[in-house]
Amino acid sequence: MSTYDDLMAFQRETEALGQIAGRLGWDQETVMPRGAAEQRGEEMAAIEGVIHARRTDPRIGDWLDAAAPEDAVATANLRHIARSYRRATRVPARLAAELARTTSIAQGKWAAARAADDFAAFAPVLGRVVALKCEEAECIADGRDPYDALLDDYEPGATSATLGAMFDALRPRLIALRDRALGSDRQPPRLEGSFDPDTQMRLAERLALGFGYDLDRGRIDRAVHPFSSGSGADVRITTRTEALDPFNCLYSTIHEVGHAAYEQGIDPDYLFTPLGAGVSMGVHESQSRLYENQIGRSRAFTGWLHGEMTRAFGDTGLDADGFYGAVNRLHRGFIRTEADEVQYNLHVMLRFDLERDMIAGRLDPADLDEAWNARFQSDFGYPVDRPAHGCLQDVHWSVGLFGYFPTYTLGNVYAGCLMAALRRDLPDLDRALARGDTSPATGWLRENVQRHGGLYAPRDLIARACKAEPDEGPLLDYLKAKFGAIYGF
Amino acid sequence: MSTYDDLMAFQRETEALGQIAGRLGWDQETVMPRGAAEQRGEEMAAIEGVIHARRTDPRIGDWLDAAAPEDAVATANLRHIARSYRRATRVPARLAAELARTTSIAQGKWAAARAADDFAAFAPVLGRVVALKCEEAECIADGRDPYDALLDDYEPGATSATLGAMFDALRPRLIALRDRALGSDRQPPRLEGSFDPDTQMRLAERLALGFGYDLDRGRIDRAVHPFSSGSGADVRITTRTEALDPFNCLYSTIHEVGHAAYEQGIDPDYLFTPLGAGVSMGVHESQSRLYENQIGRSRAFTGWLHGEMTRAFGDTGLDADGFYGAVNRLHRGFIRTEADEVQYNLHVMLRFDLERDMIAGRLDPADLDEAWNARFQSDFGYPVDRPAHGCLQDVHWSVGLFGYFPTYTLGNVYAGCLMAALRRDLPDLDRALARGDTSPATGWLRENVQRHGGLYAPRDLIARACKAEPDEGPLLDYLKAKFGAIYGF
Repeated sequence: MSTYDDLMAFQRETEALGQIAGRLGWDQETVMPRGAAEQRGEEMAAIEGVIHARRTDPRIGDWLDAAAPEDAVATANLRHIARSYRRATRVPARLAAELARTTSIAQGKWAAARAADDFAAFAPVLGRVVALKCEEAECIADGRDPYDALLDDYEPGATSATLGAMFDALRPRLIALRDRALGSDRQPPRLEGSFDPDTQMRLAERLALGFGYDLDRGRIDRAVHPFSSGSGADVRITTRTEALDPFNCLYSTIHEVGHAAYEQGIDPDYLFTPLGAGVSMGVHESQSRLYENQIGRSRAFTGWLHGEMTRAFGDTGLDADGFYGAVNRLHRGFIRTEADEVQYNLHVMLRFDLERDMIAGRLDPADLDEAWNARFQSDFGYPVDRPAHGCLQDVHWSVGLFGYFPTYTLGNVYAGCLMAALRRDLPDLDRALARGDTSPATGWLRENVQRHGGLYAPRDLIARACKAEPDEGPLLDYLKAKFGAIYGF
Repeated sequence: MSTYDDLMAFQRETEALGQIAGRLGWDQETVMPRGAAEQRGEEMAAIEGVIHARRTDPRIGDWLDAAAPEDAVATANLRHIARSYRRATRVPARLAAELARTTSIAQGKWAAARAADDFAAFAPVLGRVVALKCEEAECIADGRDPYDALLDDYEPGATSATLGAMFDALRPRLIALRDRALGSDRQPPRLEGSFDPDTQMRLAERLALGFGYDLDRGRIDRAVHPFSSGSGADVRITTRTEALDPFNCLYSTIHEVGHAAYEQGIDPDYLFTPLGAGVSMGVHESQSRLYENQIGRSRAFTGWLHGEMTRAFGDTGLDADGFYGAVNRLHRGFIRTEADEVQYNLHVMLRFDLERDMIAGRLDPADLDEAWNARFQSDFGYPVDRPAHGCLQDVHWSVGLFGYFPTYTLGNVYAGCLMAALRRDLPDLDRALARGDTSPATGWLRENVQRHGGLYAPRDLIARACKAEPDEGPLLDYLKAKFGAIYGF
């Protein structure tokens, strides 16, 4: 065996252990007995300890020094392994343990503070998390901006400068679009009524299959928060049902199917290698958002879905155009995960700016509440009514996810680019979507994006697929055309 | 930290990883997507490899040499760890790998051979498994009989000589009892009709709760083969439903609850230590069989269950005495897992003798089919009709479980002893069971057996609980009294 083969054999086992840890996470959110949480914590710590010891095993350094890649796949594998090894070995064990302990405590404090609407109860531990993340960022920065070092964990190669420029270009245009739509005389209707949850689940499964989700290599369960987990032949999704809001179940399902189809669509040869998972959070989100919005909320597809809803639940009280409007209507609100397609990105950019300020030391975490509320008022035009609807709404910061939020909007930008390329290549797309047939679109994405896994750098992957450097233009064009038509301008 | 503390900290993590591997097994049998089997195999191999490396870590030898136990718990922990370490280090890695590979192949061949009723297709790989198990037994025998070395994996301290003597005493008495019952003029009725599977599951859950199963620390799912898995705060069971045979679901559930209640009942201080699991297969089976048979199939409890069945499904067509007879009726059959309380042990003893002969080299695995059929005819009085009903019915040998079968009957013997002791201590037991209240019995078992986990050697544990050395007498007395009353002799 060559040095490269030795390294990859070791890596395969580490990747397999990582899959197991992911499966435990799925178990915890779906089927774990309520009383098992503490015991599970010790089990997770044990397997994470094993994985961390393997990721920092000094043999990796020796293998990396000696390995000579013979092709593009080997080169990409070595690039990923070197990056992960450097990342893992730069952070002292003491700091890693302190981060694990503090974020575990912080998550509990956050949940309690959110339930009690009490930012002051969360602020001290948030301060400690931020301090530790700053320390971690210094360890891995290598001369980069500390925030960029954290961002790199989720979106390799991205920088806050380029994202910031992109977001600054987007923000005023999105606000203008939102204001024009909400100020229009023509307002789309709402979907009214109550919808049997089990029927919602049956329709969600049909939609999942229709979007190419392979249930022989996955499964759908209910969970409090929808998510997708796993790789290769075992990629599971969850969704949730609310009797008064069937779109929550249906579009959460389509969104998670986008994530899952990406993982299921990766070249099986890459399984248990660094190429065998989605390459970045931004690219992942581009798939889920494109499935959910550009396809799932398109006029053509909702026309078909309107028929399915009517068959499943009886008359919805809406015609196909009204249904399209109801699926896409803009609305006021405080919560990112409930936001519409236009305003979602405003929620993200607010977080991006605030977390950059915290990591740079420009914003004291104790003042986050105040800064959040001021910024929200400025971007949305009305005040936050309580902390649970403001800076306590998301779990991310409590568990140390700094640099993660911007990948949501980057995913939307990538989705915009991909959809433009896809429509160029598939002129008959809407005819298929109107029959509920998403296979031309999902097939294009599998061929041009999903199958490559981690082979190309994220931005390069999108540029190859689109045959153009990605920017925010296509997303803005798409949103303007779509919402202009719905709101009559 | 003392040497003992270092050892136990290392052991805790190993035990936690073992729990994770067990959870993957549960996942595989209940919720895993069909297409994920191959991928799961690699994941299991990875975690088993980590666990094996830890179980043979040379530091354990050093710690064991240096550790000075300060109390009975520490002494017992060191005894278990030393036993496991000796066992794991005596088997060369080459042999362990060869066994894993061959049994994996053999399990597939066995399933195909059973489906095709083709013993010849299974015989060659069975021969290889037996040869490897003989080699393994030599490695770990330490001067003992090789079969005893294998038996010790499942029932520490047991020997084939003492089990053989016990079984030879049981066999003719069980055959005589069976023949007398089946030849009697008085034959109990059968339960007729069809029983809604979902209603069966609801009743099974009520029974599980009634037998003290804590659903906050467990869950019930359906699976092809009922089983129990896990420890401490996460002990899960499965059952199955057949519309024409509700007893299958209900008594499988009670049986698995016996296993699960044992694990849930262990002193929580022992979690993630060698004392934190049931001490042997025989003691485990004593709990499951006692819950299922001595309690669950008693006249007092079935009287209550008859009322519950009638409430759940409507008139069963049987009065309480007829129902008791139907639950307990003896019947001809080929399959161990479907056997009645009397003949079950005949199935086990047949396997015990044949597997001893194979390991001792007295029986060529190629001749197993013939030897099985001859012995079956002799013990049961009618010929095996096909291999799937004969030596291909159980998975055990294909996966290398030699020395496991006798623990089933040892468990019945222990259950007989425990039930006699329990009735002595609880004179009002039947009055509680007639109300469906099993708590005096399960409370006694928790206090006298379950909470101790691995603290005492298996036989010592039963002797302490019963205040007498265990033997087959109480089981025989119980069976004679019970079936004499049902069959009128």
